[in-house]
Amino acid sequence: MTVRAGDSLDEAAPVVVLAGGVGAARFLEGVVQVVPPAEVVAVVNVGDDLEVGGLHVSPDLDTVTYTLAGRVNPETGWGVRGDSFAALAALEELGGPAWFQLGDRDLATHLFRTHRLQEGASLSAVTAEITRALGVAVRVIPVTDQRLRTMVETPEGELSFQEYFVQRQSQDRVLGLRFAGLAEARAASGVLQAILRARAIVIAPSNPFLSIEPVLAVKGLRDCLLTSGAPKAAISPIVGGAAVKGPAAAILKSLGHDVSALGVARLYGDLIDLFVLDERDAALADAVRTEVGAECLVTQTIMSGAAEKQALARATLEALQALQTG
Amino acid sequence: MTVRAGDSLDEAAPVVVLAGGVGAARFLEGVVQVVPPAEVVAVVNVGDDLEVGGLHVSPDLDTVTYTLAGRVNPETGWGVRGDSFAALAALEELGGPAWFQLGDRDLATHLFRTHRLQEGASLSAVTAEITRALGVAVRVIPVTDQRLRTMVETPEGELSFQEYFVQRQSQDRVLGLRFAGLAEARAASGVLQAILRARAIVIAPSNPFLSIEPVLAVKGLRDCLLTSGAPKAAISPIVGGAAVKGPAAAILKSLGHDVSALGVARLYGDLIDLFVLDERDAALADAVRTEVGAECLVTQTIMSGAAEKQALARATLEALQALQTG
Repeated sequence: MTVRAGDSLDEAAPVVVLAGGVGAARFLEGVVQVVPPAEVVAVVNVGDDLEVGGLHVSPDLDTVTYTLAGRVNPETGWGVRGDSFAALAALEELGGPAWFQLGDRDLATHLFRTHRLQEGASLSAVTAEITRALGVAVRVIPVTDQRLRTMVETPEGELSFQEYFVQRQSQDRVLGLRFAGLAEARAASGVLQAILRARAIVIAPSNPFLSIEPVLAVKGLRDCLLTSGAPKAAISPIVGGAAVKGPAAAILKSLGHDVSALGVARLYGDLIDLFVLDERDAALADAVRTEVGAECLVTQTIMSGAAEKQALARATLEALQALQTG
Repeated sequence: MTVRAGDSLDEAAPVVVLAGGVGAARFLEGVVQVVPPAEVVAVVNVGDDLEVGGLHVSPDLDTVTYTLAGRVNPETGWGVRGDSFAALAALEELGGPAWFQLGDRDLATHLFRTHRLQEGASLSAVTAEITRALGVAVRVIPVTDQRLRTMVETPEGELSFQEYFVQRQSQDRVLGLRFAGLAEARAASGVLQAILRARAIVIAPSNPFLSIEPVLAVKGLRDCLLTSGAPKAAISPIVGGAAVKGPAAAILKSLGHDVSALGVARLYGDLIDLFVLDERDAALADAVRTEVGAECLVTQTIMSGAAEKQALARATLEALQALQTG
C-alpha cells in the first residue's frame, strides 16, 4: 500500500505505532517503505530506561532511532553499527560494571540526552533533536516525559527492568509487573493527539508486558485508543508458541496466560480490530475471531529481511484500510 | 636525594605535595624518581570538578593520575595519550556542547567515577580505586570528598571555573574567587594525617588562586600545615614575570599582586620555609628572604623533560632536608 492523494485514508492523519525495541524497530522499517516517514508516529516505551554511571539511557528510543536512521548494529538489533568500544575497554580496566555494554558512539547519545535533560529539556524534546540530527523523519515520541520504570516482581524480590533483563538475563520467573512513577506520568505532548487523529494504529510485535503494557498504562492512552476512530491492529510477537525474541513466552506462562498468539490477542482484547498472526498459527485465527472479536490477518510475520518487513507492514496497513472502508 | 634507612628524615613519613593539575603532575613525576612512590601523597584540588552530561569530571585528579600512570597525553598535559574520540565525534553530530573535549578512554574514568559515587563511594575511595587500577603507587587524595567548586567573580558576573577556564578561555578579568561548598567541606580521610606526619611538604608550581587556594581553604588545612613539623616549600609557577602555563599572571595582576615570583611568595607567607624560584628570578631571592622570611632555592624550574623534573624535585627535597638538619 502506498498512500496517495485520493486514497480513502486522510493523508495528513498519521499512522501510529506503539513500540518497544527491536521487533517494533524492524516493523517500523517496513512501515516507512509503504508510508511517507513524516506521516508515521512511533510512541515508544520508556519503562526500560535506566541510569548508567550518571547517564540517562533509553534503550527502546535508541533502538527505534538507530534502526530508522540505518545505523543500528544489525547483529544485535541495538547499539550502533560499527561502533568502537574504547570507553568500555578502559572501563573494564578500572573494574567498572561488566554488564555495561555501550559503544563509544552510543555513549554520545546518552551524554547528549543527559546533558539536555539537565539543561531542562524534556525527554520528548531531546528525542526530537536526536532523530532530527540523525535524519529520521518518523516522529519518535517517548510515551511520557516523566520517569516511568518497569519493576519486575520475581521470587527473588522486585528487580528493576535492567537487573531482570540485562544483569540476570531474564532468568527469573515473573510474578508481576509494576510501573514505578505511573501515577505522575502524563502522555508526552503529541501522543494522545496522534492517536486521536490517526488513520491507523498498530501495536508492534513487541513484548506485551514489558514493552506495550507500560505504554498502554499511561493515563489517557487506553481511553484515547478506544475513542480514536482509527482501525487498530496488533501483531503477535509469539509465533508457534514461542517468542520471536526475548522473554515474552516465559512471562505469558508465568502469569498464567496461554503461551500462544491467542494468549496475546486476549491481552489486547477490545483495543484491537485486527490481529496479525503468523502462518504457523493459522489454526488460532478462528479462536481469536470468536473470543476476542477481532478480524485476523494470517501472514508471514518473521521479519528476516527488508522484503519481509515491508510485506508485513503493507499487509497490516492494507488490512486495516480494508476494515475501515469495508 | 634518595631517602635511605639512616637518613635524618623519618622513612615512613610521607612527602606531601599540594597539587593542582599539569604543573603539579610534572613535579610529581620528578618526585617519584627520587622518593619511593608509595611514600608520596598528593593532596589534589577539586575546585575545578564539574558535571558534564551527568558525569562527574575531576580534571586535576585525572591529570595527576594519568601523568603518574604514564598515560597522559604529552601534547596537552591532560587527557589520555593516544585516546580516540568516537564519542566526541558522535556528540558533535548530535549538536552536543562543543567545549566538551573528552576522549573515549578518558570518558571511561568519568563513567566509572560517577557510577561509584552513585553507589555511595566517596571521591577519595573512587580515586584510590582508579589509581590502583592504573598502577599508580603514589597516594592521590582529593583534598575533600565534599562538593567544593571554585567560582570566579568577573565583570560579567560570577562564572563557574569551567565557564571561566574552558568555555571563555580565561579571558575575563578576575575580580575575586569564591569556593562554593567550603563551609561543609572537610578534609578527606588521610589528608590532615599526611600533613601532620610528613617529612616534607611541597606546594607544587600550580596556580596559587585556582589550584592551591581551594586546597588551603579547606577546614584544618592551614592549621595542620602550620602545626606540622615538616619543612615546607613552594615552587613558583611564575617565571620571569609570566605564568609557565595558564592565567596565574593575569589573576595576580587583576587582584593587585606583584606579577612575579615575589608576588607568589608573599601569598604563601608564613606557610613556607623555602621558596623555589627560577634562575631568571634570582634577583628576587633577597626580597623573598627579607619580606617573607623564607629561605630561597634558585634553580632551573622549567620542567621541559624528565631530567628537569627529577632535578627540580631532587633540589627542592634536598633543600628542605638541609633546612631540617641545618
